[in-house]
Amino acid sequence: MDVRLDTDRHRRRGIPEIIFGAGKSAAQIIRMARRLQQHRQPVLITRLEPALFPAIQAAVPRVRYDAMARLAYEDRAPRHALKGLVVVTTAGTADIPVAEEARRTLLWLGSRAVPLFDVGVAGIHRVLQQQTLLRRARVIIVVAGMEGALASVVGGLVRCPVIAVPTSVGYGANFQGLAPLLTMLNSCAPGVGVVNIDNGFGAAYLAHLINTTRSPY
Amino acid sequence: MDVRLDTDRHRRRGIPEIIFGAGKSAAQIIRMARRLQQHRQPVLITRLEPALFPAIQAAVPRVRYDAMARLAYEDRAPRHALKGLVVVTTAGTADIPVAEEARRTLLWLGSRAVPLFDVGVAGIHRVLQQQTLLRRARVIIVVAGMEGALASVVGGLVRCPVIAVPTSVGYGANFQGLAPLLTMLNSCAPGVGVVNIDNGFGAAYLAHLINTTRSPY
Amino acid sequence: MDVRLDTDRHRRRGIPEIIFGAGKSAAQIIRMARRLQQHRQPVLITRLEPALFPAIQAAVPRVRYDAMARLAYEDRAPRHALKGLVVVTTAGTADIPVAEEARRTLLWLGSRAVPLFDVGVAGIHRVLQQQTLLRRARVIIVVAGMEGALASVVGGLVRCPVIAVPTSVGYGANFQGLAPLLTMLNSCAPGVGVVNIDNGFGAAYLAHLINTTRSPY
Amino acid sequence: MDVRLDTDRHRRRGIPEIIFGAGKSAAQIIRMARRLQQHRQPVLITRLEPALFPAIQAAVPRVRYDAMARLAYEDRAPRHALKGLVVVTTAGTADIPVAEEARRTLLWLGSRAVPLFDVGVAGIHRVLQQQTLLRRARVIIVVAGMEGALASVVGGLVRCPVIAVPTSVGYGANFQGLAPLLTMLNSCAPGVGVVNIDNGFGAAYLAHLINTTRSPY
Amino acid sequence: MDVRLDTDRHRRRGIPEIIFGAGKSAAQIIRMARRLQQHRQPVLITRLEPALFPAIQAAVPRVRYDAMARLAYEDRAPRHALKGLVVVTTAGTADIPVAEEARRTLLWLGSRAVPLFDVGVAGIHRVLQQQTLLRRARVIIVVAGMEGALASVVGGLVRCPVIAVPTSVGYGANFQGLAPLLTMLNSCAPGVGVVNIDNGFGAAYLAHLINTTRSPY
Amino acid sequence: MDVRLDTDRHRRRGIPEIIFGAGKSAAQIIRMARRLQQHRQPVLITRLEPALFPAIQAAVPRVRYDAMARLAYEDRAPRHALKGLVVVTTAGTADIPVAEEARRTLLWLGSRAVPLFDVGVAGIHRVLQQQTLLRRARVIIVVAGMEGALASVVGGLVRCPVIAVPTSVGYGANFQGLAPLLTMLNSCAPGVGVVNIDNGFGAAYLAHLINTTRSPY
Amino acid sequence: MDVRLDTDRHRRRGIPEIIFGAGKSAAQIIRMARRLQQHRQPVLITRLEPALFPAIQAAVPRVRYDAMARLAYEDRAPRHALKGLVVVTTAGTADIPVAEEARRTLLWLGSRAVPLFDVGVAGIHRVLQQQTLLRRARVIIVVAGMEGALASVVGGLVRCPVIAVPTSVGYGANFQGLAPLLTMLNSCAPGVGVVNIDNGFGAAYLAHLINTTRSPY
Amino acid sequence: MDVRLDTDRHRRRGIPEIIFGAGKSAAQIIRMARRLQQHRQPVLITRLEPALFPAIQAAVPRVRYDAMARLAYEDRAPRHALKGLVVVTTAGTADIPVAEEARRTLLWLGSRAVPLFDVGVAGIHRVLQQQTLLRRARVIIVVAGMEGALASVVGGLVRCPVIAVPTSVGYGANFQGLAPLLTMLNSCAPGVGVVNIDNGFGAAYLAHLINTTRSPY
Repeated sequence: MDVRLDTDRHRRRGIPEIIFGAGKSAAQIIRMARRLQQHRQPVLITRLEPALFPAIQAAVPRVRYDAMARLAYEDRAPRHALKGLVVVTTAGTADIPVAEEARRTLLWLGSRAVPLFDVGVAGIHRVLQQQTLLRRARVIIVVAGMEGALASVVGGLVRCPVIAVPTSVGYGANFQGLAPLLTMLNSCAPGVGVVNIDNGFGAAYLAHLINTTRSPY
Repeated sequence: MDVRLDTDRHRRRGIPEIIFGAGKSAAQIIRMARRLQQHRQPVLITRLEPALFPAIQAAVPRVRYDAMARLAYEDRAPRHALKGLVVVTTAGTADIPVAEEARRTLLWLGSRAVPLFDVGVAGIHRVLQQQTLLRRARVIIVVAGMEGALASVVGGLVRCPVIAVPTSVGYGANFQGLAPLLTMLNSCAPGVGVVNIDNGFGAAYLAHLINTTRSPY
Repeated sequence: MDVRLDTDRHRRRGIPEIIFGAGKSAAQIIRMARRLQQHRQPVLITRLEPALFPAIQAAVPRVRYDAMARLAYEDRAPRHALKGLVVVTTAGTADIPVAEEARRTLLWLGSRAVPLFDVGVAGIHRVLQQQTLLRRARVIIVVAGMEGALASVVGGLVRCPVIAVPTSVGYGANFQGLAPLLTMLNSCAPGVGVVNIDNGFGAAYLAHLINTTRSPY
Repeated sequence: MDVRLDTDRHRRRGIPEIIFGAGKSAAQIIRMARRLQQHRQPVLITRLEPALFPAIQAAVPRVRYDAMARLAYEDRAPRHALKGLVVVTTAGTADIPVAEEARRTLLWLGSRAVPLFDVGVAGIHRVLQQQTLLRRARVIIVVAGMEGALASVVGGLVRCPVIAVPTSVGYGANFQGLAPLLTMLNSCAPGVGVVNIDNGFGAAYLAHLINTTRSPY
Repeated sequence: MDVRLDTDRHRRRGIPEIIFGAGKSAAQIIRMARRLQQHRQPVLITRLEPALFPAIQAAVPRVRYDAMARLAYEDRAPRHALKGLVVVTTAGTADIPVAEEARRTLLWLGSRAVPLFDVGVAGIHRVLQQQTLLRRARVIIVVAGMEGALASVVGGLVRCPVIAVPTSVGYGANFQGLAPLLTMLNSCAPGVGVVNIDNGFGAAYLAHLINTTRSPY
Repeated sequence: MDVRLDTDRHRRRGIPEIIFGAGKSAAQIIRMARRLQQHRQPVLITRLEPALFPAIQAAVPRVRYDAMARLAYEDRAPRHALKGLVVVTTAGTADIPVAEEARRTLLWLGSRAVPLFDVGVAGIHRVLQQQTLLRRARVIIVVAGMEGALASVVGGLVRCPVIAVPTSVGYGANFQGLAPLLTMLNSCAPGVGVVNIDNGFGAAYLAHLINTTRSPY
Repeated sequence: MDVRLDTDRHRRRGIPEIIFGAGKSAAQIIRMARRLQQHRQPVLITRLEPALFPAIQAAVPRVRYDAMARLAYEDRAPRHALKGLVVVTTAGTADIPVAEEARRTLLWLGSRAVPLFDVGVAGIHRVLQQQTLLRRARVIIVVAGMEGALASVVGGLVRCPVIAVPTSVGYGANFQGLAPLLTMLNSCAPGVGVVNIDNGFGAAYLAHLINTTRSPY
Repeated sequence: MDVRLDTDRHRRRGIPEIIFGAGKSAAQIIRMARRLQQHRQPVLITRLEPALFPAIQAAVPRVRYDAMARLAYEDRAPRHALKGLVVVTTAGTADIPVAEEARRTLLWLGSRAVPLFDVGVAGIHRVLQQQTLLRRARVIIVVAGMEGALASVVGGLVRCPVIAVPTSVGYGANFQGLAPLLTMLNSCAPGVGVVNIDNGFGAAYLAHLINTTRSPY
């Protein structure tokens, strides 16, 4: 049966529909991607298993694959046009794939994104040394597994909104990301909004909306 | 023993420390409020039981009480100076106290806040009829209990960031707000950030940061 | 040891026993299917792994396999005899296998079933445009993963009963379908009954009972 | 601020908006009830605390109160016009308030409702002796706390749809109704739809929709 | 390092230590089994993966393997010496492996065990027809997944103790056996003791203790 | 409406229906108790709030109240006729009300019951010193809150069945008895059956069935 | 019945049995306290409701009450004999009662205890400014509710063991202390041991054992 | 991108950063290990899959692999210099890998570690016979799955701190270690600190800090 794509989304939301790749076949993804291209909307496919990419690449023009971020994408705009500044931080090395999903999505959406990885609170000086960078950001994305404490610490240091992404990095009483999710929802520092576990894409989308919002003055 | 207030917060975050009233005695709150006033920082007390307010009013100059929002506050600025536009929606009538906590906090922080209550998805035309208002907002706060579906619907209609606040309104398998919390974290519409259950204050704080962020252009 | 089949079920419930294929060996399933055929009752096998079908096909006459729905079945009646109208909707593409389990079961039971897929609330106009179809249904099945908000929206639009099927489509705080399950149980629109996560078969069975109930007038 | 009532609901769904009384003030409820009466729609208020009724009675004409069911209602139609047959069963005596909420709602909506209480599975003969009554029903509502097994047993005996209502009756590992909720969602007998814990109103609403559905033949 | 076996257990409890096979290497199991045989205690190994049995068979005299029950065992006594009567029932076909673990363990311990499978409550007549057998039992083991309602029904029919074993058979809101576990703990029929999910061995051990207890008269 | 009592229960199960007092009004309980007495069956009412007893005492002849156990009961038999031996142990002092519910129920049912309180594992010598008593029991009931470890320790010392009753004694990560419930279900010593949290009555009922079972020899 | 006190505990563990006051009557507590005094062991009663203290004070010589810590105690030793240094920190003001339970217990046990309150991570400079004090400690107790992030930050700064106490301070997705409990169990900084929610006493007991352990050199 | 190692950790905490191997590539681990060696800090890699070790061994000098403990390590000091005494106990055989992770880490850190395995409470005499060894320890680590009762029993016998490590050994209502985790957090014996499920490394780290703390006298 045919695919029902929300091609009106670009008009409503300013951003075209993005294809969530998990649980879809290559054939379904290809049909969706082509439909987008027929409507002259650029393609972004998230959570795409590497094994599916060759078939997609053969059928959909201009898409590239970022293996760390598990994203296939069509470049939208030259880099020099990127706007604002979103800093994407991680607490640990194992959180990087989720952070890269966020960073790559930000670039695709048109925001400037700078990584700041491995600044977890077990060595608090690492994040404190980066306050100059953090203070220049319009939005900060904090990606953290284990106990997820970094979001509260960053939230307490800055004036800009913080988007917190719990990751499923950890074991035992981490419960696949439940621990950092609860940590971030209970942050003692206000100014922190939370997205789903491992949802680097969602954090980037929200950060881009914030980053490109027009000034009310 | 003495109170350790974070009077440096205004310098770091642009907003003074706000007193979380739950679980504190009137004496503790008074000591904190006076300390803020000594540092010439305006007072906001959240989650304040009505029974505590008379003692606080007697000891702390200029504070007023909003019974619906359970906030005591000192006015900061004349209304005409309010910036931007934050729309605060609720799905139902029982969600209004949380929404009022958000709205009152936004005014205190300096953002313009407009209420849009009782637009739950059981009568979807109610929110659809308000799209003009929603599209004028720089941020939208969606306050919803029961199943919390309003956040996804609003998220799918607009270009601006949405802050979703699950409430503990409901019963049974609502589990004191767990149901709308999970709904909002799993929103199929991207661009939604979530705060803790019943956390109207936190939503307002985050919305204000977004609302007053400077344009990157 | 021998299989104890509830061959009396057809007399009691109007529908013969249906074989739940998960966790059973091909030999057990074949014994059950043959027993049904000996009692001149048609065969339906749900949750059947594709790898088991060839052995079953070789041993049980007249069964066919629907790979998307994971059902093996014996046709019961010509299509023109199908009764009433059940609309089977999905929020997303990844929910389709569960919806197909429902649709195929409805046809086997003797109900007319029409698919309406990919009408999730992130693009609310998609379901609103289909109100004519929805209003013609005697029962609507809503199949949705992620946050499962579609059930409340559809429930608020129509006069007929809605059967909601949460799916395990999603990740993180979806908790394998717990999020849409809670959403559907807490629907702010009354008139929604819920079945187990991914239980397309159960939704179809219940919808068929409703669809074929005799009028009380 | 003013109340936003969904007065269009009667046109869309055939049933006017019903006021959920929990968490609302008497003043809010009175405003809503009067608005309904202005639109010539009859009033039903669920989950109404007894202490609030006198004020409502004084302000809203024609409403009566059912203390067991915690409902205030305005009679809609003479009894002889009631349609179909819904049997409302309970497993135990403590489940009766929820069942009465269902039974009273059914009468208000216009369905014939017959109680069959105290037929829990610890004495299975009690429900088996009532099979003649059960077989005459167009819909059966099963209200059960503790382990909630009655829904599966009834579901296995009849041809009509079963609406299962878990109650919070029980203690310990009942977890305020979670145990019977899971039981009912996992019913080994198909044909069972589940509503929220203690949601007698919702079960009645769904049962009425099923009971009054038009025949497809 | 060496294995510390509780060889004193036979003196204390009347039954030798039984080897829990899950998570142990063949070498560890062989060392334990030989130690038991050195103390002239018969061997029973539970939860033994089939792949490990050949190595064990080669190293430990007289052990046999029951693939359905996943048990390796050394026969203890001729069958004619078996005592009492334990009836082992299942609700469904998929519950049989757990029931066979119980039945085989009972025989090894010296109790007479009779199977009564596939008598789930969706067809309640199946268990009612077996009341003569059930009334002859000194203990009944009820093995059930899905919603686990069989334990309450059997408990309400008989005078003897009932041991309930929830199984992980089911899906979705079954939560790997949590649903029938809660059902059984909340049984409205008293006289039911519960063991861990899928713990056929533990049920048999407890049933044997009850079955062979000396009369107090 | 009238009360449906299972007066057949005595014939089926050897024990009359017992009235669960929680959530019932005095009037309902009195009607049930009188019905039992009309059928010459003795009365036992569990979980009876002290405030309800005077009304019941005035209306139902011969009932007495045990405030610690929260039971009202009619004496059934002279004490010298009590059979077997059930030892009722507690880990701590706060567990005693649940243990007394069990002990009083045992006496009412006709079993000999001996208390052994305050023998928790923090002072393991206390239970070890009582092994002579424990070895004389036909059944042991272990009542324990906090972490509930006593059940495993007792289970490892004796030949008779152990009935474990988790209590809601504790705080924090005890989760109202969930912690000892899980402990007891996972007991490393086999021969332990578990009943619901705080269910002293249910433990006694099961223990009595075991205690009075006839010898198979 | 009589009280079974573990008077041997002082010999085994070096510390006498301490009375857990929650859920005990004044009479039970008095009997226990007197028994301890008969054995010349000093009295400490935790979680004692203020309303019970007057009766206890009248019956047990030399006990005093600390209302903030909810402890009754008999002084053991002059202050100048206190050993080592335990720093007791809190994240917020509402955590102080739990911290005071810890501090008072430490003094009673014979450890030197210094408070360091209100140093939560929302203002990270507060704890960083106290590193000199923290580095002098032999053990640090971190008491924190909300998201509990302080434990990880302190753990990353020091060489000594950290005992983390989650508190039930918070709301919504805090789940009565579950959020900080999981945070502390998942601490990315090693060297942190966790005790039960709100268990200030247990933290102090463990800290005292560590503080007074003899050097192995 | 480059690796950000906390090479300052040795100065702050007395122990260098330890590499958590799970979820990292061989290349990432090698870069981190070399960085440590450049700073003359010894290497310890935890949770290292065996398949990754050959590549690491080829690239990082002097590392060895302990397959049972899943650790790669560089020897730090001759054994004769080991300090204090930490006893590492397990309840069962399947808990040994976690205990070995602890024991190997202790040796690497410089503590003397003695194993005491298979002393679970189902045969309580096993741990009671080892009291002389237990009393010589400065710290005891208790590693236990299933119900985890050993921690409470050991805690009640000794004067030294106990570190409890729940393991994921078990099935069903064990919930991957949740059952022993709750048991240990609720230990009725004070003096027990808990670490994450299966966290043998964390227990060792904490035990070493305690073991090497300087005496306050």
